[in-house]
Amino acid sequence: MVATPQEPNVSRVEVPLGTRSYLIEISSGEANRFARAIKASIGDLSHALIIADEAVDTAWAGPLADALATTSGNRIRVSKTTVPSGEPSKSINQFQSLLEWILDEGGDRRSVVIAVGGGVIGDLAGYVAAAFTRGIRFVQVPTTLLAMVDSSVGGKTGINLPGAKNMVGAFWQPSLVLIETDVLSTLPDRSYLSGLAEVIKYGVIDDAEFFAWLESNAAALVDRDGPALRYAIQKSCQSKANVVGDDERETSGRRAILNYGHTFAHAIEATAGYGSLLHGEAVSIGMQMAARLAIDLGLTDAALLDRQTALIKACKLPTTLADADPDTLLPVMMRDKKVAHGKLRFILPTKIGHVELRGDIDQQAVRKAILATR
Amino acid sequence: MVATPQEPNVSRVEVPLGTRSYLIEISSGEANRFARAIKASIGDLSHALIIADEAVDTAWAGPLADALATTSGNRIRVSKTTVPSGEPSKSINQFQSLLEWILDEGGDRRSVVIAVGGGVIGDLAGYVAAAFTRGIRFVQVPTTLLAMVDSSVGGKTGINLPGAKNMVGAFWQPSLVLIETDVLSTLPDRSYLSGLAEVIKYGVIDDAEFFAWLESNAAALVDRDGPALRYAIQKSCQSKANVVGDDERETSGRRAILNYGHTFAHAIEATAGYGSLLHGEAVSIGMQMAARLAIDLGLTDAALLDRQTALIKACKLPTTLADADPDTLLPVMMRDKKVAHGKLRFILPTKIGHVELRGDIDQQAVRKAILATR
Repeated sequence: MVATPQEPNVSRVEVPLGTRSYLIEISSGEANRFARAIKASIGDLSHALIIADEAVDTAWAGPLADALATTSGNRIRVSKTTVPSGEPSKSINQFQSLLEWILDEGGDRRSVVIAVGGGVIGDLAGYVAAAFTRGIRFVQVPTTLLAMVDSSVGGKTGINLPGAKNMVGAFWQPSLVLIETDVLSTLPDRSYLSGLAEVIKYGVIDDAEFFAWLESNAAALVDRDGPALRYAIQKSCQSKANVVGDDERETSGRRAILNYGHTFAHAIEATAGYGSLLHGEAVSIGMQMAARLAIDLGLTDAALLDRQTALIKACKLPTTLADADPDTLLPVMMRDKKVAHGKLRFILPTKIGHVELRGDIDQQAVRKAILATR
Repeated sequence: MVATPQEPNVSRVEVPLGTRSYLIEISSGEANRFARAIKASIGDLSHALIIADEAVDTAWAGPLADALATTSGNRIRVSKTTVPSGEPSKSINQFQSLLEWILDEGGDRRSVVIAVGGGVIGDLAGYVAAAFTRGIRFVQVPTTLLAMVDSSVGGKTGINLPGAKNMVGAFWQPSLVLIETDVLSTLPDRSYLSGLAEVIKYGVIDDAEFFAWLESNAAALVDRDGPALRYAIQKSCQSKANVVGDDERETSGRRAILNYGHTFAHAIEATAGYGSLLHGEAVSIGMQMAARLAIDLGLTDAALLDRQTALIKACKLPTTLADADPDTLLPVMMRDKKVAHGKLRFILPTKIGHVELRGDIDQQAVRKAILATR
């Protein structure tokens, strides 16, 4: 944690990627610093293209646009557009509309995209930035907890094909990520809590001490306590930054550990229809299935599942899925892009703070884990 | 030039890009080696996705598909689809259709795209490969001279927005480029000759000796003489590989020299409507405009223009554009994605074999160069 003396409420995490390294700045009660931070980080900024979730336009994107246009320093031209909330916006149609919008706004290779919203906006706007003239810079301003601790860090951008999530995209790193805990104050409860699932994930896959801290501080997090939240976001981003720094493009296998619970979760989301279950809710259930699978394979013991179940419940997230059906989920899992030539692979825990990639998993064991999570 | 003893008719050029390095293999009378070469280069190939220009499906893509499925070695699953010839195929709609086709064919991260066609197919299929699951491998099998000496080398992939060429895309390097001069035997005259424009370009920008060789061998090239052609392709690819190796993502400015004549050419193509003038024809005219601009700015003398004019004519390409209109072309040039913040930049020759990037060019001088090329 590096905090400059002038900014006691700002924590920083570096994502170490050589020439593509960038900072995540996490603040509390300092949303008015966004425009200043962007100008400080991108010295030659002259044209900002703000792409915002319509739900946060009035509260966050509008004020940011005004501040960018008026903050002292270089004169900056600001273009702003909004995108409807929700997963359907991660479509090729929306991708095309935004690219044409940038062209209409006179964007060029030096323009900078600023994504203001949750994971949908970050993934979509990031992919637009990756594609326009084969890549322009972009800044992430995540406005959901899920985006703050997961999708805004690591450079994965993309959109969906019908029935296939994140099937089209690019690895494209942001130039800066600006996280402000106050932004979460207006987030609906269910969406906020959903983000805690990924926070719990970092404890299980990478950091037993952080997991224990979460067990002691779950109530404060559920109450959106500022300092607790800033610490949890910082630890989560640090875990993700370490993994991404080791394996930027998911080639060494290291990055795969971030998918703990996700092979199940993606299948659950796809079959439930996008949006009827929030991503973090599906991840909670998916982590339960993965823990059961690990126990069944003799990789870990029931104590891990007990602690995980208790923490998920303390964060008011689901631990079961009443209508979980192997016959529906398995075929979708076989279609997952992480499947290599028809072989199912899973990230499975051996103890709190450590997971391993296991291939060649017997489908019967998977069925059993799904059924036990009903 | 490295030729293995077993294959006297195969020349090789390496594109030096560190972990993304790859070979260009140029053969004469050896088209039947394609499947063997692909299997040798991609050891774990198990699913090939052939995307072919419909015009070369019967002659080249079909036989390649059959050969891949039957050549000894690993059993390979082969999927094949065709795309209509011509620039309109570089659309977001076509991009989407191909991505959905890959999904329907059960493609995954280890599948390999094989592009069989000219620049349109290479750019489109390459961008599809860059985008599917954030990037899968691809092989270029260029079937036009233009694609062989230009678009198949260097990793630029992309599609068009309405009125804006190559505005959307990615830098995505192929794993292998397979060039066979016999493939050119079925190419229509006008398309074939158009490719010679880019060959001439390499002489002007990078290699005075090669330019002189072209002056002596223009007639042989126009007649599609095999050995002459293989040499010209190899020299062209070597020039391009050197430049791309220095500046993969067009960040240092070095790669910009490849755009000699192209700022004019893109504007000519855009205003003439895609396809009414072939790319190489527009580049020929664009190089003439650029040479005139260089003379007007005192960078070079009339002798350069005379030699360039004679060589372009010897290759049966146009040196003038009867209805060239600055009032039409200039606004389009200002929209070009290589324009940085409204300032026109040009690659201009100082002598045969050497060009320089010049910014801040006076629009009056550009008008004059356009009018002088009518």
